[in-house]
Amino acid sequence: MKKVITSTQNPYIKELLQLKDKSRVRKKTATFLIEGLREINLAIKGGYIIETLLFDASIFTEQLLAQIEGVATMEIIEISNEVYKKLALRDSTEGIMAIAKTKNLTLNELQLSTKNPLILVAEAPEKPGNIGALLRTADAAGIDAVLIANPKTDMYNPNIIRSSVGCVFTTTIATGTTDEIIAFLKQHQISIYGAALTASVEYQTIDYTQPSAIVVGTEATGLTNKWLENTTKNIIIPMRGAIDSMNVSVSAAIIIFEGVRQRQLKK
Amino acid sequence: MKKVITSTQNPYIKELLQLKDKSRVRKKTATFLIEGLREINLAIKGGYIIETLLFDASIFTEQLLAQIEGVATMEIIEISNEVYKKLALRDSTEGIMAIAKTKNLTLNELQLSTKNPLILVAEAPEKPGNIGALLRTADAAGIDAVLIANPKTDMYNPNIIRSSVGCVFTTTIATGTTDEIIAFLKQHQISIYGAALTASVEYQTIDYTQPSAIVVGTEATGLTNKWLENTTKNIIIPMRGAIDSMNVSVSAAIIIFEGVRQRQLKK
Repeated sequence: MKKVITSTQNPYIKELLQLKDKSRVRKKTATFLIEGLREINLAIKGGYIIETLLFDASIFTEQLLAQIEGVATMEIIEISNEVYKKLALRDSTEGIMAIAKTKNLTLNELQLSTKNPLILVAEAPEKPGNIGALLRTADAAGIDAVLIANPKTDMYNPNIIRSSVGCVFTTTIATGTTDEIIAFLKQHQISIYGAALTASVEYQTIDYTQPSAIVVGTEATGLTNKWLENTTKNIIIPMRGAIDSMNVSVSAAIIIFEGVRQRQLKK
Repeated sequence: MKKVITSTQNPYIKELLQLKDKSRVRKKTATFLIEGLREINLAIKGGYIIETLLFDASIFTEQLLAQIEGVATMEIIEISNEVYKKLALRDSTEGIMAIAKTKNLTLNELQLSTKNPLILVAEAPEKPGNIGALLRTADAAGIDAVLIANPKTDMYNPNIIRSSVGCVFTTTIATGTTDEIIAFLKQHQISIYGAALTASVEYQTIDYTQPSAIVVGTEATGLTNKWLENTTKNIIIPMRGAIDSMNVSVSAAIIIFEGVRQRQLKK
């Protein structure tokens, strides 16, 4: 029988609010919230297990629920518009959310599907929005894996899900410390190219057709010395303007798509 | 003698608030506000005439004022912290603003410095932040001009200045209707490449070493038919992921830097 929750004071809803706001609670329960039909469908496509669907009948119909793959195995809870608004991050009125099980994103769980990978590494990105933008580019480029070094949040932060428009579910992701990721790349004989404003080698002179990792730091401070000293080469996007910085997701995209272009040309 | 204004109710300050908020007032007075020392310096570098400097002595010192190029010809007004906070857009505490004269950015004032230009055209960008991001990329790439077709705001919107981190002053910019810009490009025999998800020609197969304009539409709806039907070719960035869209400033950057790469290679 379908459950209905209409009160924002319901203890279960209070737990879900914690799940939305607190990395610690997501870790402890190994679950997280997904908002929006497109994002839920991408999570299912990405092999995530959806435990529960919550829908606001005033904006999302039960008929639409039936179109979600595997819906028969999911618990369905109808929530009031008041409860939905409390749980939802966006102003939009999609009316559908899900509770999903997290995946173990540690490096030792990482399965690369090719012996010649093109990988993006981001060191300690400041904002969930930056991680989301990088994941969106990684998805478009068909990057083999995105590795986040020393992340400041877990990957199931609702703002990452939102800004990645669901690409967090479809991209192969792993997190680890800088030391762990450097060791992983070296062990797999993957060349490491660190994007740095202090570098002198121009990015387009590199051969990305071999196993390659492109490493980007934060917009404010760039890569740490630990990274700069452990790369195969440090590279720069030559800039011709009045200012000498670009948005980190833009820089990453320029280098990644040069790699993709070279690989396509070689085929 | 130095003027001092301490009241937010001062009629002059009320006028400046209008200048900050209203495109109409900027047009009528042919002036606009600039916030931040870096932005003011870039405006001076870009040939803008600064009429007045306003500084909050509690955070910006008079000695620093002396370092601004051409300060002797500018009116200096000291404002209270309360007034500064009212005028400033950012939370940051730079303590310095300027009133500058706008430039005429119509197409017939546009001076191209080369016979072989690489141009970026953006059709009706939705948000000031998108225009700012495009201008930042254009600056870094050393683009010869950025043309904004059917803009929804004037270029001196404080959010464009902020998100462009001052590149709005150092990039050659012109605005016009779609018809005017198409006519301009054709008249100057500049090839027009429209980025479109419906296109079949991959962007990296194009020769950008000849006079070229790269045209991008909005993220939501892409380019209008008027543009799609008047291009030399429509082009696509091949996408390999679960979703089929990228941020417009990221897409523009990928194509622009491919153009820059080709031009550098040809030298």
